[in-house]
Amino acid sequence: MPLLVAGSIGIDDVKTPAESRKGLLGGSASYAAVAASFFSPVRLVGVVGEDFPDKYRVMFREKGIDQEGLKTEKGKTFYWAGEYFQDLNQRRTLAVELNVFERFQPELPPAYQDTDYVLLGNLGPALQSRVVDQVKRPRFIMADTMDFYIGSARPDLMALLKRVDAVCMNDGEARQLTGENNLIKAGKMLLGHGPKFAVIKKGEHGSLLFSGDRFFSAPAYPLEEVFDPTGAGDTFAGALAGYLASVGRTDFDALRQAVIVGSAVASFNVEAFSLERLLTLKRVDIDARCRAFRDISRIDEA
Amino acid sequence: MPLLVAGSIGIDDVKTPAESRKGLLGGSASYAAVAASFFSPVRLVGVVGEDFPDKYRVMFREKGIDQEGLKTEKGKTFYWAGEYFQDLNQRRTLAVELNVFERFQPELPPAYQDTDYVLLGNLGPALQSRVVDQVKRPRFIMADTMDFYIGSARPDLMALLKRVDAVCMNDGEARQLTGENNLIKAGKMLLGHGPKFAVIKKGEHGSLLFSGDRFFSAPAYPLEEVFDPTGAGDTFAGALAGYLASVGRTDFDALRQAVIVGSAVASFNVEAFSLERLLTLKRVDIDARCRAFRDISRIDEA
Repeated sequence: MPLLVAGSIGIDDVKTPAESRKGLLGGSASYAAVAASFFSPVRLVGVVGEDFPDKYRVMFREKGIDQEGLKTEKGKTFYWAGEYFQDLNQRRTLAVELNVFERFQPELPPAYQDTDYVLLGNLGPALQSRVVDQVKRPRFIMADTMDFYIGSARPDLMALLKRVDAVCMNDGEARQLTGENNLIKAGKMLLGHGPKFAVIKKGEHGSLLFSGDRFFSAPAYPLEEVFDPTGAGDTFAGALAGYLASVGRTDFDALRQAVIVGSAVASFNVEAFSLERLLTLKRVDIDARCRAFRDISRIDEA
Repeated sequence: MPLLVAGSIGIDDVKTPAESRKGLLGGSASYAAVAASFFSPVRLVGVVGEDFPDKYRVMFREKGIDQEGLKTEKGKTFYWAGEYFQDLNQRRTLAVELNVFERFQPELPPAYQDTDYVLLGNLGPALQSRVVDQVKRPRFIMADTMDFYIGSARPDLMALLKRVDAVCMNDGEARQLTGENNLIKAGKMLLGHGPKFAVIKKGEHGSLLFSGDRFFSAPAYPLEEVFDPTGAGDTFAGALAGYLASVGRTDFDALRQAVIVGSAVASFNVEAFSLERLLTLKRVDIDARCRAFRDISRIDEA
């Protein structure tokens, strides 16, 4: 089944301890859409400026990503420049230019309005809600969010949480949103705000899935080198939601498998700058890595 | 098969945000021996002073812990007082009195010298090596260590690592010992120093097992409340080693199961002050928790 992906699309300049690169494709929707495209047809909702390179549109098309919902506005595409420090867990934003993103109001083409599976990639929660307003009978909506919106748009975010089936954020953000340091309590508190499922991403420590009294702990893939962590969370969310759309299931067991699929694709994404690794990745590579996740966390019966 | 456990035995005063308690049984060997006793007969090597309460000797006896190797010396028992802060991951030592522990030289009774399975609980690495000197044909030796010895006795610790089959430490200690921030690299570097197995404990994030090119990621049990984290690492190591001795195996699959058993017993230990929870714990509780670990981390075939 198709997955609708809404979020930011941008041009990134990224500096890591190893290398600097300019003019990279970035933004939450870019990563999420490409990651989801391994599993499902994707309908993309976002905005770019007139300067948006055609090569990225071609790439989206080759990945089977429908761009009818991608608006092109007068002006420049959203721009972000950032620098990662030695351990790659810390980063500093060097520049942000909202450009056409400043006036972005997501509008779904009529053909998108009946989409069953929806991923609200990182985006202001009021804009995420506007997407929810426009889908008619969604089966599953997942929202990603981040520290900036938790701090600056908390009421909008809390209103959004009541309208989604799943929410996804990293450990620091879950602590920030709930005010609770214990991640198990924080995960349950997220459920208390509305969603049926909550996913907490812990980077090198894997991720946690909560639903009612059920719980799943996913390992991280044992990476010795991270080249560029940009977009890892968006990739995780995109692959997770794309997998769910592909199996057409939203039960707990489907979610736990989707978390592994998301972890697997995200573990590839950090191996190269921007989306480069995802562009050479094959479905068989993902399947093999999912089996590796199974092997590294398998517990036999005593 | 019996397990030899060497380490410190002390009296602790512990303050947590919830409560303060004095005169508790503490020390690495106390926790490890009781944790191991659920699985194997235990031979205890340590030293106490004349003030050591008889009730603790009775408890050891009831747990089937052989105390022939427990020396009683003139003077007072090792004493530690500490305080935990709100999040319980941070603690501050308020007082340490080495007392009889200052002149401790572990001596194995003849009946202990043929023990096949040996756990060197937290103790200075020179003393741990002295224990190794005295076991005749050990099948498996595991050493635990801590930040203090990594900082103050590094040459002794490196010499010890060449003589043990497995080493166990927490994430901060693994980073301190190897100088490597990435825990996957750090784990492999630990293997490079000698042991066939390395275990890195990550507290709320579970633990990692390394051996050659093999890797296992164990989840943490989802605890919402930690009452007293004292001795969690010692309990983990004791249950892990006791389980191995009980099955008489030292292959990778036995180690991965042992890591889960260690995690399960340690998750109980933090539910009450000192060893209190371990004293009411039943083997069926441990088995049920091991099944829970299996359930929370199970990944199905795609």
